[in-house]
Formats: sequence, C-alpha cells, structure tokens
Amino acid sequence: MNEKIVIALGGNALQSGNAAATAEAQLEVVKMTAEKIAEISSKGCEIAVVHGNGPQVGRILLASETAKDITPPMPFDVCGAMSQGYIGYHLQQCIKYALNKANRNIPVVTVATQMVVEKNDPAFKNPTKPIGPFYSREEAERLAAEKGYIVKEDSGRGWRRVVASPMPRKIVEISAIKKLWDSTVVISCGGGGIPVTENSDGSLSGVAAVIDKDFAAELLAEQVGADILLILTEVEKVAVNFNKPDQRNLSSMSLHEAAGYCEEGQFPPGSMLPKVEAAMKFVRANPDKKAIITSLDKAAEALDGKTGTVITFS
Amino acid sequence: MNEKIVIALGGNALQSGNAAATAEAQLEVVKMTAEKIAEISSKGCEIAVVHGNGPQVGRILLASETAKDITPPMPFDVCGAMSQGYIGYHLQQCIKYALNKANRNIPVVTVATQMVVEKNDPAFKNPTKPIGPFYSREEAERLAAEKGYIVKEDSGRGWRRVVASPMPRKIVEISAIKKLWDSTVVISCGGGGIPVTENSDGSLSGVAAVIDKDFAAELLAEQVGADILLILTEVEKVAVNFNKPDQRNLSSMSLHEAAGYCEEGQFPPGSMLPKVEAAMKFVRANPDKKAIITSLDKAAEALDGKTGTVITFS
Repeated sequence: MNEKIVIALGGNALQSGNAAATAEAQLEVVKMTAEKIAEISSKGCEIAVVHGNGPQVGRILLASETAKDITPPMPFDVCGAMSQGYIGYHLQQCIKYALNKANRNIPVVTVATQMVVEKNDPAFKNPTKPIGPFYSREEAERLAAEKGYIVKEDSGRGWRRVVASPMPRKIVEISAIKKLWDSTVVISCGGGGIPVTENSDGSLSGVAAVIDKDFAAELLAEQVGADILLILTEVEKVAVNFNKPDQRNLSSMSLHEAAGYCEEGQFPPGSMLPKVEAAMKFVRANPDKKAIITSLDKAAEALDGKTGTVITFS
Repeated sequence: MNEKIVIALGGNALQSGNAAATAEAQLEVVKMTAEKIAEISSKGCEIAVVHGNGPQVGRILLASETAKDITPPMPFDVCGAMSQGYIGYHLQQCIKYALNKANRNIPVVTVATQMVVEKNDPAFKNPTKPIGPFYSREEAERLAAEKGYIVKEDSGRGWRRVVASPMPRKIVEISAIKKLWDSTVVISCGGGGIPVTENSDGSLSGVAAVIDKDFAAELLAEQVGADILLILTEVEKVAVNFNKPDQRNLSSMSLHEAAGYCEEGQFPPGSMLPKVEAAMKFVRANPDKKAIITSLDKAAEALDGKTGTVITFS
C-alpha cells in the first residue's frame, strides 16, 4: 500500500466516556487505540498522528487554577504544551509496543509543536471556547480587569473565561516532522498545536486560544504531502438528517456535495462540521487525494474501501 | 569547529533564584539562556540540549495534588512528561529565535523522551528524593497504605513521599534523536527522561522516580557519539576545598585526579558530585573525548579553552 496517512484522533481515542478522567484510565484507552493504529501501519502505510486535548488541557488548567494560592497558575499556552507531553507520552509508549507486537520495528516519537495563528484572525474578535473553572460574577469581573480575560456567563452555571479558536496557519516544527516522516511514526500538533503568534521581530509569543485539531491535521497532511487525511471520530460514517427517521449514512461525498450539505446545516458546528470542512480543505488543495471520516474501530476497513465516508474532489 | 556537543542545562538556565516561580519568569530566563546556546551553535558546533526539571515537576505535582478533590491527580511519570512539554516549549521557542537572530536557520525541536531504568536498580531499595506536598503523619501513613507510597519525615517540617533516583540505562527514543541530530537542535531527555521500566512482554511502564539529568545527558552524549559533554551549572570552574580559605579552582582534571577528589569527598552529593561523576563516565567510555563543567555564561569561552574545568581521560 505504502500510502502516507495523517491520522487525526478524536477524544474517544484517548478517553472512555464512562470512565474516571484519570491518567490510568487514559492509558488503558490509549492501549486499545494503539492496536488500531498498528493495524493501519501494518498495511504498509506511513503514518503520522495528531490528537485532540480538550478534556486533558481543561483538567490541567483546572488543577493549576485550583492550586493558584499554593503555586503559580500556568498560562493556557503552557497548559497546552503540558498536555502534548502527557498525551504524547502515553501514545508513543503504547503505539511503539503495539507496532513491536505486529513485528514492525518503527520508532515512535512525540514532537512538541507550536502552531502559528494570525493576530488578526476574526476568531479573536469573538472568542467562544470556554476554558477553566467556573467563577462568580464578581471574580469573573475582577479577572477581566486584572488579567484581560474575556468572560461569559455559561448557561446559568456561572461565569467562565472564553478564548478564541483561530485557524492554524503554520506548523513551526514542520521541518523536523518532515525529516522524521519516512522512518518514524511522529505524534505532533497535539491539541491542534500550542497556539503562538508572530511578532514583528520574528519571535513567537504563546496566546490563549484553542486550535481545532482536525484543521491542524489537515495542514500537516498538506505539508507532508499525505495521500490520505484520516479523521477518526465516534461514528462509522458521516450522516445527513442525523438522528431523524430519514437519516442517511454517506459512503462518499464530492467536494460539491459536501459543500451543499454544509450549506443545508447538516453538520453541527463544533462536532461534525469542522471534520467535514477539514476534509474539504484537504481535497480542495489536493484534488487527486482523499479524506476519510470514520470511527477508530473501522479505520482499517475504511482504508480498504469497505466503510467510512470518503471525501474526494469530484 | 563542527564539534558535536551535548549541553546539560542546570536549574539556573530555566529559573532565577530570586524571581517568582511563574511560567512568565521562566520564559524571561530561557530567553537569556537561548542567547548563550545560540552563541555555542554559532561556533559551528552541532548541539543537543538536555535540561533538568526539579522545580517544575515539583510544582506540577503540587498543583495536581492540591486540586485532587476537583480533578484526578496525575501520576509522577505523567507529571514528568508534562514538564518536558512545558520546558521544551519555552526552550524551542527561544532557541529558535536566538538562532535566527544569529543568522543560523536551524530547526529546533523537543522530543518527548522515555528513559528506561532497571527494576532492580539498588536506588529503588532506598528512595531518597522527596517529591510533592508535605503531609501530616496520619495522611502520610494512609497514602503509604493506600497507594504504596514510601514516606519519610522531612527535617521536622512534616512527612513527604520519597522516590528513588535510579541510573538511566536506555533512551527509548534514541533513533529519532539520532535521525534529527545532523540537521536540528534537539531538546530531549528533559528532567533526565520520563522514567519507565521494561516488562517481560517488552512493554514499558512509567514509574515514580527522579533521574539525574547529568547522567541522562552523559548517556545521550555516548549514544550520539558527541565530542564534548558540556555540563552547565552555577560556577565557572569545579573547585576543591570549596568555600574554604584554600579553595582551589580546577582548570582540568584527569579521570584519575577526579576519582581521587571524589574519594576525598570534595564534591557534595546531589550537587557537584553527580556532575563530576557524569563527566568521568563520559571520558571513561570515550578516552579521546572530553567533558567540560562550567557556567552558562562562560560556556562559549570554555569551549575556546579559556575557562571552565575540562575533564579528560588522562
């Protein structure tokens, strides 16, 4: 096969919905995820892995804020860097073992990855992603004044800090990732990458933002010249009329069809929509390549053309 | 020059003794450290960087334990992985910028690194490194019973968990590090590496332990065939009769001389002793190479032979 595949792992690849959010529970889920990834590698594919970090970075921030009178709280970009170390460590340990069991002696490594976002990205004008603990109104207003946080009332449950979700524009460590690609399973762009902006002198500064990991995986797939962008989530196929009597699971979508479904509002924002949009972006940039959206469990079958939703240019 | 150098950064390269232990303060120190590292690179040397993580991993664990009723506490191996992400992110951001300013367009990247230690390392029989918060005697005894922690009374200040400091034996991600070496400044083995032990089925398991970063840097230097192991600390030269009227700063030590000074108890354990021992180990394994112990500020001069303590085989 020997195809180059960038795999974007959804939250269920790291954490089980009904287990405690402990590192020990994550490790057990990651062991199973690693078996599936080894199965893909065993087809002869060259793979790279991108993962989300929503629940993990949220807990790191929560612990940090909870302990703030005991030890200084960490900025959100640093929490993201910490989550890359945490998740990458588990993934590289388990994927390496699963590959060894499959008699594939391939190195596996996590690269801490910064992702450049644009200072004037429209997302910064309307931050929508809640992060960290709930605050009282008074505390929220104090944090807004003192630290410049943008805070919003969250469905009657209290106030929370919100941050922007800008588009990923440049993978800072791309040359090292490319250098490793041929020989090594690289885990990179964790949580979409640590968000940074470029200053006029060329230096980078971390910013508080949440980057969509599917768009980060898409950018990586473009830059390494991947044949397939494989977006793994909880469902085997993308559906229209989801959860309605006339639900229809899609085996394929052209760019044109996908745009039509998006237009109709078929895919929920923050859930299936960014996955479909990332897939569309990839085939728009690479008309001879394809994106696949399917579940972790069905990924190997989908690569054989037996299931999943394939997104192609035409 | 074109020499291959593994640089081991001491705690003062990341944190100023008199500043708050915030991420923002660390970033300011790391900016200055990065200038010094760029200066070394600008001599034409190929460099890799290893850093400690004592204060950082301590604070990550402290935040995690303080918030344990709000969000599950992280095991110590995961705290180590998180500290690699945190410190590596700052280092790679700042070193890249400093290199750019020096017109050296070299990629800089952090590799999450596991370090194999032996289950039967004698250090596990007598753990000595205190980690995490202070406990009351009752709480300490409960944790010992429930979680198997080894706890010790700490100089009348309360009880603390203690972990072992075993010798680093194998860098799990060494092949990726070697692959990157020629083209890239690699930051690896942070905090000595995430400590793992090998199971009989070949899988790895994280363990609660503290690995000496100078010994980790030494192992890396051996494995990449470095010409120089450069151990940076707070002093310009190693001294005998330190802080006594007859203090003598050493410009060089042979292996034999160094062994003699160690025998005399000239170097404090947990401070200069492991640095001298790591230097000795390197030249014992590579009789035609050298180790240098000096300060971050004097590193470039030391490489020119103008200062520092050079340790050679004979």
